[in-house]
Amino acid sequence: MTRVERKSEMSISDKIKRSMAQGSWVRKMFEEGASFKRRYGEENVFDLSLGNPVMEPPVEFHQELKRLVENPLPGMHRYMENAGYPETRAAVATQLSLETGIKFTMNDIIMTCGAAGALNVVLKTILNEGDGVIIFAPYFPEYTNYIDNHGGIVRILPTDEQFIPRLDILETTIGAKTRAVLINSPNNPSGSVYSEDFVRQLGELLGKKETQYGTQIFLVSDEAYRKIIYDGRKYPQVWPYHQQSIVVTSHSKDLALPGERIGYIAVNPACRQREELVDGLIYCNRTLGYVNAPALMQHVVSRLQSVTVPVAEYQKKRDFLYAHLNEMGFSVMKPQGAFYMFPKSPLEDDVAFVRELQSWRVLTVPGCGFGAPGYFRISYCVDDRTLEGSLAGFGKAAQKFNLC
Amino acid sequence: MTRVERKSEMSISDKIKRSMAQGSWVRKMFEEGASFKRRYGEENVFDLSLGNPVMEPPVEFHQELKRLVENPLPGMHRYMENAGYPETRAAVATQLSLETGIKFTMNDIIMTCGAAGALNVVLKTILNEGDGVIIFAPYFPEYTNYIDNHGGIVRILPTDEQFIPRLDILETTIGAKTRAVLINSPNNPSGSVYSEDFVRQLGELLGKKETQYGTQIFLVSDEAYRKIIYDGRKYPQVWPYHQQSIVVTSHSKDLALPGERIGYIAVNPACRQREELVDGLIYCNRTLGYVNAPALMQHVVSRLQSVTVPVAEYQKKRDFLYAHLNEMGFSVMKPQGAFYMFPKSPLEDDVAFVRELQSWRVLTVPGCGFGAPGYFRISYCVDDRTLEGSLAGFGKAAQKFNLC
Repeated sequence: MTRVERKSEMSISDKIKRSMAQGSWVRKMFEEGASFKRRYGEENVFDLSLGNPVMEPPVEFHQELKRLVENPLPGMHRYMENAGYPETRAAVATQLSLETGIKFTMNDIIMTCGAAGALNVVLKTILNEGDGVIIFAPYFPEYTNYIDNHGGIVRILPTDEQFIPRLDILETTIGAKTRAVLINSPNNPSGSVYSEDFVRQLGELLGKKETQYGTQIFLVSDEAYRKIIYDGRKYPQVWPYHQQSIVVTSHSKDLALPGERIGYIAVNPACRQREELVDGLIYCNRTLGYVNAPALMQHVVSRLQSVTVPVAEYQKKRDFLYAHLNEMGFSVMKPQGAFYMFPKSPLEDDVAFVRELQSWRVLTVPGCGFGAPGYFRISYCVDDRTLEGSLAGFGKAAQKFNLC
Repeated sequence: MTRVERKSEMSISDKIKRSMAQGSWVRKMFEEGASFKRRYGEENVFDLSLGNPVMEPPVEFHQELKRLVENPLPGMHRYMENAGYPETRAAVATQLSLETGIKFTMNDIIMTCGAAGALNVVLKTILNEGDGVIIFAPYFPEYTNYIDNHGGIVRILPTDEQFIPRLDILETTIGAKTRAVLINSPNNPSGSVYSEDFVRQLGELLGKKETQYGTQIFLVSDEAYRKIIYDGRKYPQVWPYHQQSIVVTSHSKDLALPGERIGYIAVNPACRQREELVDGLIYCNRTLGYVNAPALMQHVVSRLQSVTVPVAEYQKKRDFLYAHLNEMGFSVMKPQGAFYMFPKSPLEDDVAFVRELQSWRVLTVPGCGFGAPGYFRISYCVDDRTLEGSLAGFGKAAQKFNLC
């Protein structure tokens, strides 16, 4: 009888219930943040907890959207092929060819509902139940959900002090069941950008392991922040260094359109069995229920492939915040890209430290949320007022924990 | 050694490879259709195979889109809560309250990437591995993919001659592991609309079985075609007849926006453990990688909740085609909604018959694609020229197979 009563209480699956319970502290923290805002007023709380860029899309976006809306194409809101409009795929391919010197065609590109959609489609396509996917801490927390969605087994490996994956540990970890290595550069949450040399070594290692096990090991590169890169740095491409490489990305950050869910998958033209892979990706884009990337946004981004938000503004914010945190005595790596900073927590317990910051009305995210306890994440894609306003709180924390 | 070589050939998962192979005949048929178009010219092939409405969105849509694009709100392309904009959710709730006489609030609504996204989110949220989901043939073919995506076991039950689910068979099929019954009215592919009486009986049966097994059995109602309904018929709501009911729908058909991926989940306000369920749905909307429904379209549909494409035009097309097919001797049920007809195939082998129709340059889909061999689906959401042009081919088929 007891069992029957328990069963009857089940409105959501056991697994989702467990996952939600595990993540409930994050939610609790956000709720506390929201209650701080209610108590002290929105303008007196400095929210650096979200990766939701404050920048508006570039003027070219507004112009192109207006042009399309004022001159609607017949059928422009209808279904199209699941892979997306041929002209959009071709435009992405042309831009990628330009950026990389490698010849892409529309057949290498699948338009998706953002990078999150892209990554789910890739994992669904390539993973057999129980296949291993390696990620590196600190990592974007949704990765573990996405891998689990499609029956993959997550393996989390460490990075060095510069947040670069430890290749020596990777080498001893890859086995016959390793199906993919998922990297993210510029990295959320650390802001680190991998070097060309690192990418080359990583590619060589994967190639060696493929030969050793007679398998395909995909290098899946999440490049959502590829265009948000500083100090004139050149972005190192994965394409030349590993055949079985797939890039997932979106226009959420480079065109400041995170709510619109527009991104793409690009497959290495040199991929072995490329055609079967691409067919599989298109199939999974459909069968996972994405169906296709939003039609209007596909039309809009077609002509905006070479447009990016003014990255110099993010760099200025980085410089401002980094200089101040550094001066206060925080131990923090200077980010080379994205719009996050990942300082060491002055307290061993990063959740406790984030709570301290909250008490000074500064909202951040504890490192344990990214698989890296002992750190905390600052998102600096906020307006200058918020950034400037947060300094007092950071200063008080620095004083309290004797950082200077 | 052989095994290693086979493994190394694997660019997509075994399961996706199998699924694609199973569905490859559909693809082949579409490719044949495309080659017919190339050979005879687009205008000489009458394509009734796709559920991609030819109608443009209503004028109110264009006006609202223009208004928004000319007066952009600050941050209108940014992330919002995963459930969607509060004002959009509230607008949907208000319209649903109006249509049903039941009080919905924004907390009962989750905006999604179309009905396909909605259904995947629902299934992910409620299904434990191995839970049973019952559907009725003929059914929308993606259902089996969606259920399988989330570890559910598909159980396919028959309908009667009017394509209404057989409740007597349902009664003996539901067991302790049955987690959901998925219905679709107006139905794709049959065009049948369930009666209020049927929905009431179905609700009673599910309630009885919930008590018998001490479980929750969800009635998931796919109402993508709810507004496309003919002859002044009133749409029977599921809400009064089963507490654990969830509606998934989209604006793909009522606003003719299938490419934009904008839809929603509505949860019965009377649902037991409604709050936990809604939290789970929002969580899965995020973790499945949908993140949120496209932002701009959420803004647009907010004010269009009471707007629908001119349904009378679809009804005219139905009347025209039904009258002609009937006269030719086809055995076909007069659809009460959606924009499909599902006649009996004059040949037992529906694939062979669809091939015959192809030879007269009329493209349709065999019933076996919908779990109902011996029938074929005609989609009449096409322009009148295509519909009129198809009659010659249907006439020849009727003659050849002596229908009159």
